[in-house]
Amino acid sequence: MTAPLGEFDLIARYFTRPARRAFLGVGDDCALLPAPAADEQLAISSDMLVEGRHFLPGADSEALGHKALAVNLSDLAAVGARPHAFTLAMALPEADARWLEGFARGLFALADAHDIELIGGDTTRGPRNLCLTVLGLVPRGQALLRSGAQPGDDLWVSGTVGDARLALGHRLGEWALDAPTQAATFLRMDRPTPRVTLGLALRGLAHAAIDVSDGLLADLGHILRQSRVGAVVQADDCPASASLRDQPLMRRRLCQLAGGDDYELLFTAPPAARAAVTVAAAQAITPVTRIGRIDAEPGLRLIDASGQVLDNVYAGFDHFRMP
Amino acid sequence: MTAPLGEFDLIARYFTRPARRAFLGVGDDCALLPAPAADEQLAISSDMLVEGRHFLPGADSEALGHKALAVNLSDLAAVGARPHAFTLAMALPEADARWLEGFARGLFALADAHDIELIGGDTTRGPRNLCLTVLGLVPRGQALLRSGAQPGDDLWVSGTVGDARLALGHRLGEWALDAPTQAATFLRMDRPTPRVTLGLALRGLAHAAIDVSDGLLADLGHILRQSRVGAVVQADDCPASASLRDQPLMRRRLCQLAGGDDYELLFTAPPAARAAVTVAAAQAITPVTRIGRIDAEPGLRLIDASGQVLDNVYAGFDHFRMP
Repeated sequence: MTAPLGEFDLIARYFTRPARRAFLGVGDDCALLPAPAADEQLAISSDMLVEGRHFLPGADSEALGHKALAVNLSDLAAVGARPHAFTLAMALPEADARWLEGFARGLFALADAHDIELIGGDTTRGPRNLCLTVLGLVPRGQALLRSGAQPGDDLWVSGTVGDARLALGHRLGEWALDAPTQAATFLRMDRPTPRVTLGLALRGLAHAAIDVSDGLLADLGHILRQSRVGAVVQADDCPASASLRDQPLMRRRLCQLAGGDDYELLFTAPPAARAAVTVAAAQAITPVTRIGRIDAEPGLRLIDASGQVLDNVYAGFDHFRMP
Repeated sequence: MTAPLGEFDLIARYFTRPARRAFLGVGDDCALLPAPAADEQLAISSDMLVEGRHFLPGADSEALGHKALAVNLSDLAAVGARPHAFTLAMALPEADARWLEGFARGLFALADAHDIELIGGDTTRGPRNLCLTVLGLVPRGQALLRSGAQPGDDLWVSGTVGDARLALGHRLGEWALDAPTQAATFLRMDRPTPRVTLGLALRGLAHAAIDVSDGLLADLGHILRQSRVGAVVQADDCPASASLRDQPLMRRRLCQLAGGDDYELLFTAPPAARAAVTVAAAQAITPVTRIGRIDAEPGLRLIDASGQVLDNVYAGFDHFRMP
């Protein structure tokens, strides 16, 4: 059902809610937010999702509303920031009431779960594109950075990694999954869980953190470069879902090490903090697994269960190099 | 010249500068900014520019870098906020070094002129789309709002309006302009001047303000609705450039009243503040002109120089209703 709605009707119908933190919300030139407390920093991130690249044409709009916010919340999680407010700018090929209704439902369900307020944005006609900017708050000096990893740190990852890539491979025809595996992995790809609670719990424990969006090894590479350290990764220690454990080893490694789109947290912490990390993760109701260690020697060494060094053929994801 | 650059190369080459206000800048999961002073509010706005809608394919990238930031700065101007920081998310069909170099040049020239810092963003492949989110600062309670207009207020507009629409008409083949007029009006369309200094100067003087992006009467309509007032507008008092004064009256009115894309400030202030407004505008080196008055009777009455009421056929711009 496509309704001939105008821009202002659209904004009013689907995206206007009573302002809470914002003094002015959706529909003015700017949103106005009170200054946070003086001992807090603002964490800010923008992510753009493009149809045909980050999601397939015809993707369910409710799932898309969830995912568009989830990937931005994941950036806040990676620095240990508390979600605060966000803007939504989007280009749409047409003003389709059903699409918008689903999108708003998915978006606000996740927003409400994380107590983050939509404060403004922009809508325009164009090839489908969703651009969110999120603002979070973090006590000064407590943000988790990519640059804090230290030799000797354990390398940890939350949840399981690889399912999103396994699902994508099925959608792209690289391999075929049975129906239950499709259901399980599509859910991971389409409705990722931002690890916000874990990010908050890791403040003061983790030395460095990043979210796994481009691929585990590609994202680890950012930590290593910015921390000027190296790492050894136990390839087959990466936590896998039941769906992924059933796959051939080479496919599993590809999905886990190069896949991306998982939005798990990859972080480092000193071995002395192992018990504290485990407690923090349990309180955040988020499993965590040690998959390697940081060392002083630059570079990334990938090993298998027997300690054999593996070729690292899991090159980084690059938005401008993908086909 | 199209260079096979990857995303991270692109970010590093064209958009990384030493962080100033931001503790973490371009290239981390989030940018981190110190909290502003407790008596300040954050003003936040996102605008999305889409190729084929907000700019034509093949548009000069330096001008586009200027305009993408200018339209966002204009939103800060409209609330009287001081520019502080911005994020840039963009989708590009290819990683073209020459295009990027020009874009960055135009963007940073305007950013430096307004002392606003690029703190983060996102780049991806896709149909060309530029999404900026700007953060500004304004002392608490001093922001200019759309909702503050009062009966009896003068209605003012800055600079001249209509040139951008005159230029667009030429580009779309609606009419033909001579070469000098093309040069003058294209400059207005492609390199709008955000009225940031005027917006700051109007704090404490103007009752309501908005920037003219969708069209003078359409934007005035937002003030009238949100202030629950009406207005009388002297159609032919709208300040026009020399280019526009040479045009037929009906074309001039169309361009001035319905055109949009001018990024002038439209604001209301009490008659008692006329001298103060004139002084503030002179200090901001920005001409201002009175074009009507706010009254209690709802609706918008358009009159000509003789006081005759004109049909308001200058319907509002709507991003989902444009051809």
